[in-house]
Amino acid sequence: MNPATCSSGNYEYNKLPLSLEELYKGCIIKFRNSRTVFDYRGATNTVEEILKIEVEPGWKKDTVITFPGKGNQVRRKSAATDLVIVVEEKPHPIFKREQNDLIITHKISLLEALTGKTIKVTMLDGREIEVSVTDIVKPDTEIVVQDEGMPSASKPGKKGNLRINFDIIFPSQLSTLQKCQLKKIFSEVDSYS
Amino acid sequence: MNPATCSSGNYEYNKLPLSLEELYKGCIIKFRNSRTVFDYRGATNTVEEILKIEVEPGWKKDTVITFPGKGNQVRRKSAATDLVIVVEEKPHPIFKREQNDLIITHKISLLEALTGKTIKVTMLDGREIEVSVTDIVKPDTEIVVQDEGMPSASKPGKKGNLRINFDIIFPSQLSTLQKCQLKKIFSEVDSYS
Repeated sequence: MNPATCSSGNYEYNKLPLSLEELYKGCIIKFRNSRTVFDYRGATNTVEEILKIEVEPGWKKDTVITFPGKGNQVRRKSAATDLVIVVEEKPHPIFKREQNDLIITHKISLLEALTGKTIKVTMLDGREIEVSVTDIVKPDTEIVVQDEGMPSASKPGKKGNLRINFDIIFPSQLSTLQKCQLKKIFSEVDSYS
Repeated sequence: MNPATCSSGNYEYNKLPLSLEELYKGCIIKFRNSRTVFDYRGATNTVEEILKIEVEPGWKKDTVITFPGKGNQVRRKSAATDLVIVVEEKPHPIFKREQNDLIITHKISLLEALTGKTIKVTMLDGREIEVSVTDIVKPDTEIVVQDEGMPSASKPGKKGNLRINFDIIFPSQLSTLQKCQLKKIFSEVDSYS
């Protein structure tokens, strides 16, 4: 850790980018903190020590961790500043987070959207869950799986929801015969409202 | 016209809400302007007159029309303020405007999306245009009809485009037989990428 530090007033801000997996499960981050202090003769020294952050499951971006007096000593005889760490959330290739909800967009063929499918989702803790889709999936369909979102840091034991959206993949072309067959099938259907 | 007037500095602002039809074709707006002036004895009088705005085809919201000296006289012996009119665009039930483009969302059944349809659109000047949709319509399909948008006020003779988006209406349910038939038809199709 310890990337670009920006000082502001009495604080020094460091960014702590964490993956959704780390924020889901919680983790321990250890990092080497280098800071400048004055010795008794007024000369500056660099002091290094290992600091530890216990990331709790469900922490959100912008969570702030403060280490009092672990920043630089700006002037001789003044107290050292605080070291302030701010959590950032790394983008995830599959999940988006909205508060404690996790959102995925699942690709599904038009045929599957019309006839049903069992969806498998690998969660952030590695578990694979199965969701049976039996109703017709429409472009704005969202399936909500209760309690499969991020854990709540403020309410231990509580979880948000998993929300599954769909990207329905239409066929790129159909033959004249296929179109005729579709017209026959859909002629009995309430397909237009 | 002459709705709620709000004074600010030397100006008086009136809002002129116009429909997309009026902004498309242009129109003449006449309104009664009431204002306060001082007479030679220092008494205030209300003066009324009919003013005229020639709305040009393609005017946008926030277009400002100024009538110098046609506002109230705030103090005796001072000049009357300017009357400032600001164009507003009324919401339209069918068309949305983005710069000079007109956008509609057309409802289409899933069958029509797959097999094609001729769409009829009644334009803001009352003309009906036909657009043949032969390619498969997907949820994010947008058909652009050149030069069927709003006229350009700054470039006479030029027009924006008409952009047609689609709201594909899926059937609400299908029978087991219909699902089997669909599987048979789509088995030969590149429906999943």
